[in-house]
Amino acid sequence: MTAPTASNDSLMEELVGLCKRRGFIFPSSEIYGGYNGFYDYGPLGVELRNNIKNAWWRDFVQRRDDVVGLDSSIIMHPRIWKASGHVDGFSDPMVDCKESKRRYRADQLFSAPVVLDGEPCGYIAYVEGADEASIIKQAKKLRDLLDRKQSKLDEAQLLNSATEFTEVDEVVREKTLGPDAAKIGTLTAPREFKLMFETKVGPLADDSAVAYLRPETAQGIFANYKNVVDTGRVKIPFGIAQIGKAFRNEITPRNFIFRSREFEQMEIEYFIAPEADWKQLHREWLDLCIDWLVSIGLPRESITEDVHPQEKLAFYSQATTDLMFHFPHGEQELWGIACRSDYDLKQHQEHSGKSMEIFDEASKSKFVPHVIEPSLGVDRTLLAVLTAAYCEDEVPNDKGKVETRTLLKFSPRVAPYKAAVFPLLKNKPELVERAEALYKKLQRRWNVFYDASGAIGRRYRRQDEIGTPFGITIDFDTIEKDGTVTLRDRDTCEQRRVSEDELIDFLEEQIEG
Amino acid sequence: MTAPTASNDSLMEELVGLCKRRGFIFPSSEIYGGYNGFYDYGPLGVELRNNIKNAWWRDFVQRRDDVVGLDSSIIMHPRIWKASGHVDGFSDPMVDCKESKRRYRADQLFSAPVVLDGEPCGYIAYVEGADEASIIKQAKKLRDLLDRKQSKLDEAQLLNSATEFTEVDEVVREKTLGPDAAKIGTLTAPREFKLMFETKVGPLADDSAVAYLRPETAQGIFANYKNVVDTGRVKIPFGIAQIGKAFRNEITPRNFIFRSREFEQMEIEYFIAPEADWKQLHREWLDLCIDWLVSIGLPRESITEDVHPQEKLAFYSQATTDLMFHFPHGEQELWGIACRSDYDLKQHQEHSGKSMEIFDEASKSKFVPHVIEPSLGVDRTLLAVLTAAYCEDEVPNDKGKVETRTLLKFSPRVAPYKAAVFPLLKNKPELVERAEALYKKLQRRWNVFYDASGAIGRRYRRQDEIGTPFGITIDFDTIEKDGTVTLRDRDTCEQRRVSEDELIDFLEEQIEG
Repeated sequence: MTAPTASNDSLMEELVGLCKRRGFIFPSSEIYGGYNGFYDYGPLGVELRNNIKNAWWRDFVQRRDDVVGLDSSIIMHPRIWKASGHVDGFSDPMVDCKESKRRYRADQLFSAPVVLDGEPCGYIAYVEGADEASIIKQAKKLRDLLDRKQSKLDEAQLLNSATEFTEVDEVVREKTLGPDAAKIGTLTAPREFKLMFETKVGPLADDSAVAYLRPETAQGIFANYKNVVDTGRVKIPFGIAQIGKAFRNEITPRNFIFRSREFEQMEIEYFIAPEADWKQLHREWLDLCIDWLVSIGLPRESITEDVHPQEKLAFYSQATTDLMFHFPHGEQELWGIACRSDYDLKQHQEHSGKSMEIFDEASKSKFVPHVIEPSLGVDRTLLAVLTAAYCEDEVPNDKGKVETRTLLKFSPRVAPYKAAVFPLLKNKPELVERAEALYKKLQRRWNVFYDASGAIGRRYRRQDEIGTPFGITIDFDTIEKDGTVTLRDRDTCEQRRVSEDELIDFLEEQIEG
Repeated sequence: MTAPTASNDSLMEELVGLCKRRGFIFPSSEIYGGYNGFYDYGPLGVELRNNIKNAWWRDFVQRRDDVVGLDSSIIMHPRIWKASGHVDGFSDPMVDCKESKRRYRADQLFSAPVVLDGEPCGYIAYVEGADEASIIKQAKKLRDLLDRKQSKLDEAQLLNSATEFTEVDEVVREKTLGPDAAKIGTLTAPREFKLMFETKVGPLADDSAVAYLRPETAQGIFANYKNVVDTGRVKIPFGIAQIGKAFRNEITPRNFIFRSREFEQMEIEYFIAPEADWKQLHREWLDLCIDWLVSIGLPRESITEDVHPQEKLAFYSQATTDLMFHFPHGEQELWGIACRSDYDLKQHQEHSGKSMEIFDEASKSKFVPHVIEPSLGVDRTLLAVLTAAYCEDEVPNDKGKVETRTLLKFSPRVAPYKAAVFPLLKNKPELVERAEALYKKLQRRWNVFYDASGAIGRRYRRQDEIGTPFGITIDFDTIEKDGTVTLRDRDTCEQRRVSEDELIDFLEEQIEG
């Protein structure tokens, strides 16, 4: 196994900085020193987030005839998690460092051999995503500990022969220098760590009260499948969609909002006949999902497919393909599209004693349907949108001098503010009055911004940095001539004059198209 | 103290039944026997819920210049709940029945004196909302237990002299027959029961890992106040708004979705200068909130104000007024609008060591702002909307015979489906094709329904029962004459012919106005 791709740490740092500075995303509970694995969305972040969720809901639920929505509770009957297998099986292998007391996910920890003067002398462990320089530094630390400062380190062997820590044996562990350790052999064997958050419901505090925060929204769909079938007029094939929070007690939450302990999912269970051509349907869902990601602003070429090999699938799973995106920390899973057969419904049928069969009018037959599950994270989508939108370029400023600007090239569909309205000058009441009137009119329909202060170029830059796609300026031509306004495009900086009617038609097409 | 209003149990039962039958609200985890205090929103419920949330967000955040949004995490640093007072103080007084093992909230349990032949003989306890007949029945049960079957019960005394169980002493308790008991004196003294759900975050399972599910969204706003002030361009007075889930381990969740253990809030903290005229601002917020409730379909006369008496306010609170609504289970709190002074920010200032002062350009002074807090529950609002919308009336059917119909008179702003499109006949391809084309066009913009099956009158009834405000029928005149369609009003059943352009303008005005 080779070591995973190195990450672009500086891009991630810039994104985290911009998100904090402009009110997109704050570390949760920051005034109390932060809380590892939790994030809060600020004024701009919540708008971006809502726009992503609303676009998904509109495209996958409201604009389709074969998908209905659902909003199940976060805390559900604990038997649901017994039936789903989460109570017994949902855990991660964890490694402790006896010296530093830090913990690592065994599947994110790698052991690499340290060869000195051609002789294997020990191992170092490093966390997924570590860069070459730090891996070599760690190996030299081991060399020092072994009192072999003068020995030649085989760097090629070190960098090309990493083993996932889940697969190393005791002999290797005892010769390994941990990522945060000063001594050799301080890492424990991996052991299972439960990922579901537990709580207790009701006035009793005994074991009968134990409940879980859902680690996924999908089981809420399976648990309500029977009620939806019995009360709606759904016909096979059909889907049930849900957006909602989920919680996993990750051992090492990291990479900003990519892997946090509290996150939000957008999931669909698409129920099909057992004899349906699931391969073709799987392909159709993959294409739909890719198209949707493109529609919210991700470049087609930034999305790749990772087909899970047959031998890594669960026994009931027919196929899983992940849509991968090139995040700042490397190419990672964004959207998993899985063919899960009738496994989940059959599990609930067995545990609840209720029949999960549906009568299919078309084939005049009764069956437990199979399912295709496209599962997408809101926070990961938001991080992908930010990553794709973030760039710097050079543009002339008010004085014609070239300057570097930071911009977020959000699609108008998801941008927090759709447009910003500016009176050219703050101290001309006729400009201000006209600008405010247009602002108030647009605000009835869209989330728009009004800004009267500072040079117009600076006002444009402020909007560029928060991704507002259109700038609308009211100038003297507006009030003295034909009523047209200047419409500026964020990405090209091009300006053109449009009438108010043209403006509204244009915005409508760009935002709602 | 007098006993609280009796409830309209049959209306509640009808609502619960309709909600289940038509896919608005299901008991959570129903295939596993349900889970007390939790509900799932079905295909229609989730649309109604989203429409309420979106209307609130648009009106109180996007259409205002002085309010910004926020979405903080559900699990936050536990020190936030220490600072807010919830760790030490957020509890309910609870009474146990030693015999039946049932538990009651002491402030929802009432003790009433049983007077036989003019002589005080004991007490019965009943739960808030119990009707007169059951109270008298319980008193007669006590009479039997005392072997005084022939004695005359003083009913007036019984019904008019209830005491909240928080205020009864040991002498009374020992003479009280509990609501579910067969013996006298089985109820315990009230004791405090913590309402926050606890969990543990991180790999360690010791006390340092204890965290809480937020019991309100408000503290997430206070905890982020500093970040919003530092990164945004807010000026006093301004508000921060948030919609999100909250959790309370209620001892006796009840009255459908009115008091559940998992619920959602829509809260604003509106920050004002310490010397501002908070009385006037409080009144303005009350009026705004009432207007908003009317805008989503609650009759003005169904909303009353409950001003909390000075002696019941917390020491820091200047005023609290609840907007009350007449729910099926009685007149109850819907929207609390509280003036909380600078208490919360000062608490966080003290506990975090960070200054919560803001510099006010207008007055050139620095201060910790005071706050007005309008706090509304999504689920209660939805129950109020359902209650106000539910009715039955008599209308002529297809054959001119009068029949009773059930309808939900939702405002078009919040109705799950905005309109339903029908081809007059299912077996006429030209009607079906035209109807489908119009349906697809409307569906790009709104959530609309398509129905081709059954007599047209039956199709109207189905939509009446789920609250779709407009029915649009494509008939032979549409295709053979002028292209107009029949537009039917749900409430009046009146029909008129409109052109497609008129239809879209009309829908736009009704839905988005």
